[in-house]
Amino acid sequence: MNIDMIHAAAARLEGKARKTSLLSSPLLDEIAGRQILIKPECLQHTGSFKYRGGYSAISALNKDKCTTGVIAYSSGNHAQGIALAARQHDMQAVIIMPNDAPAIKIANTKALGGRVVGYDRATENREDIGAKLSNEHNLTLIKPYDEPQVIAGQGTTGLEIAEQAAELGVNKAQVLVCCGGGGLTSGIALALAEHAPEMTVHPAEPENFDDTARSLKSGERVANEKSSGGMCDAILTPTPGELTFPIMKSHCPSGFVVSDEEVLTTMALAFQCLKIVIEPGGAVALAVALFCKDTLETDTVIAVASGGNVDYQMFQRALKTLN
Amino acid sequence: MNIDMIHAAAARLEGKARKTSLLSSPLLDEIAGRQILIKPECLQHTGSFKYRGGYSAISALNKDKCTTGVIAYSSGNHAQGIALAARQHDMQAVIIMPNDAPAIKIANTKALGGRVVGYDRATENREDIGAKLSNEHNLTLIKPYDEPQVIAGQGTTGLEIAEQAAELGVNKAQVLVCCGGGGLTSGIALALAEHAPEMTVHPAEPENFDDTARSLKSGERVANEKSSGGMCDAILTPTPGELTFPIMKSHCPSGFVVSDEEVLTTMALAFQCLKIVIEPGGAVALAVALFCKDTLETDTVIAVASGGNVDYQMFQRALKTLN
Repeated sequence: MNIDMIHAAAARLEGKARKTSLLSSPLLDEIAGRQILIKPECLQHTGSFKYRGGYSAISALNKDKCTTGVIAYSSGNHAQGIALAARQHDMQAVIIMPNDAPAIKIANTKALGGRVVGYDRATENREDIGAKLSNEHNLTLIKPYDEPQVIAGQGTTGLEIAEQAAELGVNKAQVLVCCGGGGLTSGIALALAEHAPEMTVHPAEPENFDDTARSLKSGERVANEKSSGGMCDAILTPTPGELTFPIMKSHCPSGFVVSDEEVLTTMALAFQCLKIVIEPGGAVALAVALFCKDTLETDTVIAVASGGNVDYQMFQRALKTLN
Repeated sequence: MNIDMIHAAAARLEGKARKTSLLSSPLLDEIAGRQILIKPECLQHTGSFKYRGGYSAISALNKDKCTTGVIAYSSGNHAQGIALAARQHDMQAVIIMPNDAPAIKIANTKALGGRVVGYDRATENREDIGAKLSNEHNLTLIKPYDEPQVIAGQGTTGLEIAEQAAELGVNKAQVLVCCGGGGLTSGIALALAEHAPEMTVHPAEPENFDDTARSLKSGERVANEKSSGGMCDAILTPTPGELTFPIMKSHCPSGFVVSDEEVLTTMALAFQCLKIVIEPGGAVALAVALFCKDTLETDTVIAVASGGNVDYQMFQRALKTLN
């Protein structure tokens, strides 16, 4: 895993991934007491940065391997990223999704050409279904973060941050990244270590699911006590990844943690000031920028708004904080 | 009023206005039965395209004129565009706003340093109030649409549409533009006549406030029966402008009209598929793309999402259509 792989992923993604432009708002700067630049990956194809990693991985598949398609397990953002990227490569994508996944996520994955195979969370095992389908149909499994070409794809977000911030005269900043398994955080950290060495990358997590922050503190991968029940569904992984953690350990000095209430307020402020839709798991980094201002250090902070695939009921809950 | 003025405005706006990137969504394309490209000016500074015209006009003011400040009448978006542009030129901005303007527009205008003067839409004439204050305080009036440098600024949206669509291989398209007084519509029409001559521009309006569509049909400026009460506050002007109408008459074959219900559904679909926040008046063009599909003709349509300054209560109303 190195910077060359990120450059190569960027070349493959050229003309495919959207170069999402940095946003800002005078009102948010006022709240934070410093300049905040927002990288709105909710505006990326499929509504999250996951398209970058999905496309990167699929476009890097060995053509000689006679792969007829790809398979992924996901109830959300990785599913949609893989579905679109596979369609663009004329490959089939089989996505194993729980029957009780939000209807809109199933509809979007199907609209992107994905073949959704439902399973019952209570009585069926998705790995078994996946192994069976994979063998029968010769499908390649694309993991959500512990896969070098996925990390490389997510890292292209970091290349853009370095370039776009420099255009605004910003070379030094704390860069806050919503963190689940660490694919996006580690990819951005590698990209910035090369292209913006005065920037430091910090994972951002919700309370009770701060495995990465605690792992960075202790120096080794630790797990969350809870495995479900959190609001930030997109980033509730049990531990940092095997591949991603060593990268984060080398490059990320510390992690930040915010409360669910701060996340909801942040979603509402992004609605009001930026006109973008962020899902809970995509709002934690901006929440850190707004609510951890006393522990942040740089005049400018950059927050990645990593996704926007949120049900309207949850969004209505966020809007109520404006009342 | 000519294309050179638009090019000059683009030069002044370089590094100031955001070059908002075209968005798209497979699900929206499916609903529309064709490709839709969305120009998201809700992501522009101040949450609408109006910053372009405001900055263009203020930056074009004759410095010898000893203007101490500017004055504008606006339901909210022009107000914010003028307030920010004035602040960037170290000028005061006085804004005449209807008392029933969305609270967020009034609050944001004040936050940007604008001095807000209220009036009653039904009983008072904003032009009269503007002329009076302008004379008394030596302020330069910046009209919201019947002002060549404002039209030139809004026209820069058209330059970007031509360039960005061409990059996607799209040269022929019906371009749908949310239309109040016609500043944005006429500016875009002039820009595209020069840079994308196979594109045709069509104003989009809400029912009961379709003065431009009816004026284009009759060949002369006709007025709306109602002057208030519509949901699409940003575009409820009584008639097309004196300067803008001749331009639209030359370049726009016809206008389209949508219902309030279609507008609300469109706001919800933009939330769901594009992750952007659009206000009612900023959603009419995309509503045409989605709901007038039998009368549209081109394989690709381009819809300008002109603004996103909507109160959360109205947005919640839109989200309820997803129920």
